[in-house]
Amino acid sequence: MTKNELFKEIQRKRSFLCIGLDTDVRKIPQFLQDEDDPIFAFNKRIIDATAHLCVAYKPNLAFYESMGSFGIKAFEKTVAYLQSEYPEQFIIADAKRGDIGNTSDMYARSFFEHLKVDALTIAPYMGSDSVQPFLKYTGHWVILLALTSNEGAFDFQLTEDKEGKALFEQVLEKSKEWGDSEQLMYVVGATKAAMLERVRAIVPDSFLLVPGVGSQNGSLEEVARYGLNEQCGLLVNASRSIIYADHTEAFASAAAAEAEKLRHQMAEILIKNKLVEA
Amino acid sequence: MTKNELFKEIQRKRSFLCIGLDTDVRKIPQFLQDEDDPIFAFNKRIIDATAHLCVAYKPNLAFYESMGSFGIKAFEKTVAYLQSEYPEQFIIADAKRGDIGNTSDMYARSFFEHLKVDALTIAPYMGSDSVQPFLKYTGHWVILLALTSNEGAFDFQLTEDKEGKALFEQVLEKSKEWGDSEQLMYVVGATKAAMLERVRAIVPDSFLLVPGVGSQNGSLEEVARYGLNEQCGLLVNASRSIIYADHTEAFASAAAAEAEKLRHQMAEILIKNKLVEA
Repeated sequence: MTKNELFKEIQRKRSFLCIGLDTDVRKIPQFLQDEDDPIFAFNKRIIDATAHLCVAYKPNLAFYESMGSFGIKAFEKTVAYLQSEYPEQFIIADAKRGDIGNTSDMYARSFFEHLKVDALTIAPYMGSDSVQPFLKYTGHWVILLALTSNEGAFDFQLTEDKEGKALFEQVLEKSKEWGDSEQLMYVVGATKAAMLERVRAIVPDSFLLVPGVGSQNGSLEEVARYGLNEQCGLLVNASRSIIYADHTEAFASAAAAEAEKLRHQMAEILIKNKLVEA
Repeated sequence: MTKNELFKEIQRKRSFLCIGLDTDVRKIPQFLQDEDDPIFAFNKRIIDATAHLCVAYKPNLAFYESMGSFGIKAFEKTVAYLQSEYPEQFIIADAKRGDIGNTSDMYARSFFEHLKVDALTIAPYMGSDSVQPFLKYTGHWVILLALTSNEGAFDFQLTEDKEGKALFEQVLEKSKEWGDSEQLMYVVGATKAAMLERVRAIVPDSFLLVPGVGSQNGSLEEVARYGLNEQCGLLVNASRSIIYADHTEAFASAAAAEAEKLRHQMAEILIKNKLVEA
């Protein structure tokens, strides 16, 4: 999917919502536990109930890997289901990988050739050769961690070099040597919305994947104020606040209701900023 | 396994070799491809041929994940085989994970409760809460990326802050607030052996996992000169140079011969430094 195609989807749905499929087998409703594959059964119902409200899904690999090969199978099935039933959805494998070149090659093959997800999150610590193998795959995206939503982000990401440039700014700048806004996106936490101004100063045209709205209490208004660009440029992710909105048999419609709250706010933001018609 | 127990194993085997099981299905000998699980069949033979020469094995998850749930099963079988047949081996899952707290919890559960590996490699970019969930598991280890062996390491890891402290030094220092040398080890590439002096200035007592000897051409002599401490303090990893030493039916004994070359050098280093008897 290109940047333009993604923006068109955002306009069509009046939504820049990404739903995080952080599916934890301990948290899914009791009545699904008897299914052959409770994880996939849960994801399928969440997807069917919310696909008209969002433009992207982001399964976090940790949740699937924690169940071993069984969990990985549920992940693969979820990706395949999205691809066959909702091919317009942008699929992000949230894996936060980052390794030396020959290993990154393996990951690239795994995620872009076998699974054919649209995008993969990558940690920048190991530098260029940990990122570049992924950029060989045109039509696929690398989403680089820049400024994350968690408390630990303050440990290193904001450390300044001699010129006063924070590590996350060094990452943004250096990454522009590796690829452009047609292949690279960045993770910037909603909990650090004011920092979005500094992010936009370096990557004005890039899409940003913004976690931290929802359970982590970031503000959608703030994110839009500092982060929006002329092609929207934002994918705002919520996970737990949507998928675990309810634990009864009505969990999927409760998830849809939560997603619709965010989508409605997003539509207003898009209208106010003249990115869609009123 | 405690630090003392690991040192005792090093003394007993006169080896601080770690063998990287970076098993790529495209690179294993043709005659194994007919087995039900060629990856596991390969690993099993490598392990049986080399276990007396090394103290640790390090499967790199990327290679297993690139084959989906089938590969993960091969990984699980490899870990289980080591645990039942060679319980004295230190097992490192080279996964380079790093995510927000609730996700790190999932990974910790996966690797330390289900798989029960001894150690997991972790990327430090996301800071404290991406590391601390792993440190709750006593008897298990976090191996934090500090200074990696690849070219891209120069992109960020050597960037200095206002006091002239490189990012890898900031990581080492900060990590001492999270845990001590009984729970934390560090990755320091053999290709940057001279930097080991700066590493040892901050973490004199910690074990270091040193990749980059072998295919990446780091020098074992240099690594020992700058990195050895009074409990050895080094696990030197080689992967491709050992496991792909040969592609015929004799691949396992060829791997053992390569491993023995390194082990022999290691024994001499240990003797010279009076860490074992001559």
